[in-house]
Amino acid sequence: MVTFLSARDIARIVGEVGARRFWLRLVDELRRDFLRWDAFEKSARYASHSPRGVIELMPASDGETFAFKFVNGHPGNTSLNLQTVVAFGALADVATGYPTLIADMTLATALRTGATSALAAAHLARPGSKTMALIGLGAQSEFQACAFQAVLGVDRLRVFDVDPDAVEKFERNMADYGMTIVRCTDAYSAAAGADIVTTITADKKFATILSDNMIPLGAHINAVGGDCPGKTELARELLLRSQIFVEYAAQTRVEGEIQQLGPHHPVTELRDVLSGRRPGRASNDAITIFDSVGFAIEDFTILRLLRDLALETGVGGKIDLIAEPENPKDLFSLLHPLDAEREEVAPRLKTKQLA
Amino acid sequence: MVTFLSARDIARIVGEVGARRFWLRLVDELRRDFLRWDAFEKSARYASHSPRGVIELMPASDGETFAFKFVNGHPGNTSLNLQTVVAFGALADVATGYPTLIADMTLATALRTGATSALAAAHLARPGSKTMALIGLGAQSEFQACAFQAVLGVDRLRVFDVDPDAVEKFERNMADYGMTIVRCTDAYSAAAGADIVTTITADKKFATILSDNMIPLGAHINAVGGDCPGKTELARELLLRSQIFVEYAAQTRVEGEIQQLGPHHPVTELRDVLSGRRPGRASNDAITIFDSVGFAIEDFTILRLLRDLALETGVGGKIDLIAEPENPKDLFSLLHPLDAEREEVAPRLKTKQLA
Repeated sequence: MVTFLSARDIARIVGEVGARRFWLRLVDELRRDFLRWDAFEKSARYASHSPRGVIELMPASDGETFAFKFVNGHPGNTSLNLQTVVAFGALADVATGYPTLIADMTLATALRTGATSALAAAHLARPGSKTMALIGLGAQSEFQACAFQAVLGVDRLRVFDVDPDAVEKFERNMADYGMTIVRCTDAYSAAAGADIVTTITADKKFATILSDNMIPLGAHINAVGGDCPGKTELARELLLRSQIFVEYAAQTRVEGEIQQLGPHHPVTELRDVLSGRRPGRASNDAITIFDSVGFAIEDFTILRLLRDLALETGVGGKIDLIAEPENPKDLFSLLHPLDAEREEVAPRLKTKQLA
Repeated sequence: MVTFLSARDIARIVGEVGARRFWLRLVDELRRDFLRWDAFEKSARYASHSPRGVIELMPASDGETFAFKFVNGHPGNTSLNLQTVVAFGALADVATGYPTLIADMTLATALRTGATSALAAAHLARPGSKTMALIGLGAQSEFQACAFQAVLGVDRLRVFDVDPDAVEKFERNMADYGMTIVRCTDAYSAAAGADIVTTITADKKFATILSDNMIPLGAHINAVGGDCPGKTELARELLLRSQIFVEYAAQTRVEGEIQQLGPHHPVTELRDVLSGRRPGRASNDAITIFDSVGFAIEDFTILRLLRDLALETGVGGKIDLIAEPENPKDLFSLLHPLDAEREEVAPRLKTKQLA
């Protein structure tokens, strides 16, 4: 039997563990997996493009556990009242090839994205950063706020979205989390005075959400919304005067903000900052940017953590995803219960028996 | 909600439809999908190799439906009393990216493999072929026997396996199917007098199950067991004097019997025979070989058929694989039920409210 975790199960796990402890544990496991980067098999994701969107399979393996995520991207889904991105994931045991977990990853991806952003900011933002601008209050926004609250102690949010409904939804969702939320009239005023500026808008085009003159010296920019070719949020001039940090340069140069720059523009991979091999923030006045696009190892980490927590908390179901005949060489026995319909296939034998 | 089909559900579907009608419908749908070959996006499978085996993701899409199969290959699993190959598959709607089906594919792969072999033989074997040699009586053997019975009317089997337990298992499973089963002492005597010779041994090495002098003129060879680099069953000399048919030449040259031949040895793709673009059997005396390795379109076909039959028969379950918040932009609402644990995150607010 394979463990099955729905989004509801995952929410229950977060509840059982406690949200703050869950975020801290997820960030800790992300840090450890980023630090053992070389243990992972890296490979291109598989992408199937169609006029309305893309379907991707993203595999990752550390030689012990194999993970993959199925994820789509269909910008037009909003007009059908469907989500633009849904996802599910699976784990398998590398030693036997048997799958062990199937889980929703729509919610799980939001959790790991928030945690990865918080991990990067914990190492790159100025110490004592407590005020965050949140520009774009869509599906990912609350997860960013909660992760930054749990990991960095962010307690003040300066928020902006072009859609007033999104602002109301955000304030409603965050009402009980004890953060001071300041509504701002535009991205410019949201960014003013913020220690950390998080951009998570959904425009699938080259947009300039942050221009060069909006960012105070010393800010950390957590750029989450630009995550595919043609989708960026930061002005090129801003990138040019900032220190840029990425998950995996080869992927980010195609999908991230830095697709606007030359292929050799210097960037630092987050794991090298975590390990101390390369410096993080150069000075209190430097602008640091985490150009986040999402990486397969992050999916691996959250799936493995959810598998472990399902065991620890007893939350989750089981599905018989894999046929398990008593004798592995006797797969056909699985069809045996069908006595009734055999008569159709073997009328002659029936006749013989009756004779 | 996503439809979920376990192996038990699939067996129930086969029972509801009737085995013979199921085989005929599956073969018919395979034929139609092979004939619209160009509608499919072809792509390399993703393979993750480890010391004990391989895990693969095999995607296929016709622009309307996206399918993929997760499948492993772990030869050493038998010593753990585990299956060497297990699999599951999924379908998604290309227009929205939403998954629609998760299903066992261990049983489903055995069904589609038998049906593909029968489809090829129906077009390549001499008319009136009723006697089949079955060499190798492992997990796939009964599926081959049943498919050939349903599609070609094969009613006489000449069987051989080095393992007497496998022979007994096969005879037990096929006892009620109204076929005459002749036990043979070796592969040579099994092949003698057979119209069709099916090889499905499991040796993962260059083995010669069929040598050149064993095959009567006019036979059709259904070579199923050789399906990866280094695993073949037929003597090279036999290949050289036969007409060879394959699913997809580029893949079969790497994985099939023809890996023993030069990269330009002439082979015919099955779809070209089905469409009439290229001739099939040249004469009554010709030896035809279907060098079967399994192709992603076959997985696509069986998954789509199972999805349709689940609807028609009402068999199968539903799982909430995909988080579906009422408002697609309000993913965070899925975490809302966790009121109790919010106190931990937001102690200050609690205090404020009490003040």
